[in-house]
Amino acid sequence: MDGAGGGGRGAPVAPGAGPRVSSPAGAAALGGETEALATEPQQQGSTWLGRRLEELPTPALAVAEATARRNAERMLERCRALGVRLRPHVKTHKTLEGAALATGGTRRGIVVSTLAEARFFAAAGFDDILYAYPLPAGRLEECAALAERLDAFQVLLDSPGGLALLRQRPLAPGKRWLVWLKLDCGNARAGIRPTDAGALELARAIAEEAPAEVTLVGVYAHCGDTYRCGGVPEIQAVARATTAAVLDFVAALRQAGVPCPQAGIGSTPSCSHPVPEMSQLTELHPGNYIFYDLQQTLLGSCRPEDVALRVLTRVVGHYPHRNQLLVDCGWTALSLHGQSQLPTGFAAVEGHPELRLVGMTQEHGQLEAVAGSLDFGRFPVGSVLALIPFHACATAAMHPVYYVHTEGKVVALWHPVRGW
Amino acid sequence: MDGAGGGGRGAPVAPGAGPRVSSPAGAAALGGETEALATEPQQQGSTWLGRRLEELPTPALAVAEATARRNAERMLERCRALGVRLRPHVKTHKTLEGAALATGGTRRGIVVSTLAEARFFAAAGFDDILYAYPLPAGRLEECAALAERLDAFQVLLDSPGGLALLRQRPLAPGKRWLVWLKLDCGNARAGIRPTDAGALELARAIAEEAPAEVTLVGVYAHCGDTYRCGGVPEIQAVARATTAAVLDFVAALRQAGVPCPQAGIGSTPSCSHPVPEMSQLTELHPGNYIFYDLQQTLLGSCRPEDVALRVLTRVVGHYPHRNQLLVDCGWTALSLHGQSQLPTGFAAVEGHPELRLVGMTQEHGQLEAVAGSLDFGRFPVGSVLALIPFHACATAAMHPVYYVHTEGKVVALWHPVRGW
Repeated sequence: MDGAGGGGRGAPVAPGAGPRVSSPAGAAALGGETEALATEPQQQGSTWLGRRLEELPTPALAVAEATARRNAERMLERCRALGVRLRPHVKTHKTLEGAALATGGTRRGIVVSTLAEARFFAAAGFDDILYAYPLPAGRLEECAALAERLDAFQVLLDSPGGLALLRQRPLAPGKRWLVWLKLDCGNARAGIRPTDAGALELARAIAEEAPAEVTLVGVYAHCGDTYRCGGVPEIQAVARATTAAVLDFVAALRQAGVPCPQAGIGSTPSCSHPVPEMSQLTELHPGNYIFYDLQQTLLGSCRPEDVALRVLTRVVGHYPHRNQLLVDCGWTALSLHGQSQLPTGFAAVEGHPELRLVGMTQEHGQLEAVAGSLDFGRFPVGSVLALIPFHACATAAMHPVYYVHTEGKVVALWHPVRGW
Repeated sequence: MDGAGGGGRGAPVAPGAGPRVSSPAGAAALGGETEALATEPQQQGSTWLGRRLEELPTPALAVAEATARRNAERMLERCRALGVRLRPHVKTHKTLEGAALATGGTRRGIVVSTLAEARFFAAAGFDDILYAYPLPAGRLEECAALAERLDAFQVLLDSPGGLALLRQRPLAPGKRWLVWLKLDCGNARAGIRPTDAGALELARAIAEEAPAEVTLVGVYAHCGDTYRCGGVPEIQAVARATTAAVLDFVAALRQAGVPCPQAGIGSTPSCSHPVPEMSQLTELHPGNYIFYDLQQTLLGSCRPEDVALRVLTRVVGHYPHRNQLLVDCGWTALSLHGQSQLPTGFAAVEGHPELRLVGMTQEHGQLEAVAGSLDFGRFPVGSVLALIPFHACATAAMHPVYYVHTEGKVVALWHPVRGW
């Protein structure tokens, strides 16, 4: 992040920054003569290609390409070494480019969290997509359209009601619903507990109730409880327990004569330091690791230099009477995640451990010194600072465009899908 | 909010809900044969016109048109009664339709918080736009383009540096920079304190340094400190103090021979219960009131029935072993605002004071009973609940489209501008 507040004094601002990238919603609602002055459509963001990060209008989400690529390659390599397939979750970045990196260019085998993501990736040629969300009743027809179009559109369920729903809509000839059973192995969000009396029965029903219509592909457990751990040993204990619970369930199924070819777990903390037992699984489904963030750094999932995201912001005012700077990054650019979980406030300021982001409103951030007086001379109005986000998924969700850079020079713009 | 979980049992889900609204980002990146399966562009959202709220795919942001209109009309009426101009802030909704309502159809005289908003509204024929943000150094040329194009594009500054910046770029002949001086009368965010030695000097410099290039239009103070108050009497005390500070400053300017035609304050709490002294101002700049929210209800700014926003969500799972429901509303649809500030968690569930939204992840919300056991029979999987957001600005910022309804029937789709 050289060039964007990485060291001492922030970089000066380039005057007359030119056209801006902004949401296409405005442009879509407009037309004709007024368009020239409208919020420029996203394609004009290409104006920024080749420019330095410190020239970008702020706030801006910067992605270090080499870091994201390295994170993606390391996870692929880690899974190769374990002998399991990596099926990356794309919810953190929601971009075609991010998913291409995460799949090592195959564009096959991803996890999505919304049907908007499913359609977006499917339309761009991605296939073998797992929609990892309790199957929503009102959206069955959309799921069926994806299942009939793709080689493999897979769904997830955790209740007999979910299976009954699928049975209402048999797919076109030659297609069957590809189903993962979601297990709750301690995370306490979605999923049926493998120890529940009904869990084996549900798996059997998925596999056997209507084999021409529905197939049991696998079982999956999201070990999101790793986010409540205090470090790598605890995370590995959760990963070990989750893996064992999933494998025990698959063994019990096999014992009962129910085939279940796939078994997976996921979460960036568990997959960043996998335990050997995970090699007995067939798939891993982490997502955040492509960017990482402060939360992951604190958990021990990554080193500080592995965090690919920054929110670039500029100093917009000095308020020495209260020992504060204002910057142009509020919660619309960073989110409120991490509040009161960091000694440096809502984020960390790269290269400036002496600063604390103590407050944010919609478009303003308030920075003060962790201790003592602020040296205002080091932060002239207009200088650029780089904030390291607490939660990459939440911060990325606030941005209509990501500025992807190599050593501080913008090399690509990524446009995420939004909505549901 | 009749029809969306307003009373007892949630409404059943309409099967096969049809095409979806989602971000146009995906569609923009795609083309040709694959487009049909892509995330549908926003214009196809018109499929939902005339449908009932309970048929919408969830999560969805619902705006009660009559409530928003009534909120807008009441604020206009309140300002007429005071004899001051209402210059509504559009940052809460960021939509052309919301701004048309808030200006009583004149489409003149608004406040924006970003240049993306400024361009969006300007392109749609809005004029007399105040960009109420410390003038950003790198964006001077964009401001100049707006100033030269509009009848009145007004800027705000709070430092001699801001004035020096403006002086670097004189406008085309016949145009002058229209400047508001931002005062900090206790809010402690942007602004120069009226008691600061330099405040009068700065106002004088704006007015007199280069009268052919720069004009002092007015002084403005955002009394955001009303959000830290414990009720209407405290809010009115802040409003009274802020008004007095602004008017005293204007009087001192006049005394010093510096003309300052306009004087304003703003914040939804202060403008919802204005004190008589505010009639001596010329403008008020509230914004949130068009939607209101739980925070405003708690502050006393509005009655519960004045809150126009709901996030519609569906039950996606029953987890009786931990006495929890899952719903399809995570922080991507609600934001994290309000966390630990409500007895009902992150939001209130309309018609269900017995429910508490205790946790959210990206796409999941966890509901449990405030006390005792949950009556799962009242909330079948697929039933719709309506969440009342804590902070309308933050929740609206998460949605690419707002479903505007009259008595539960969708009558319009509003598309907000995003980005910077």
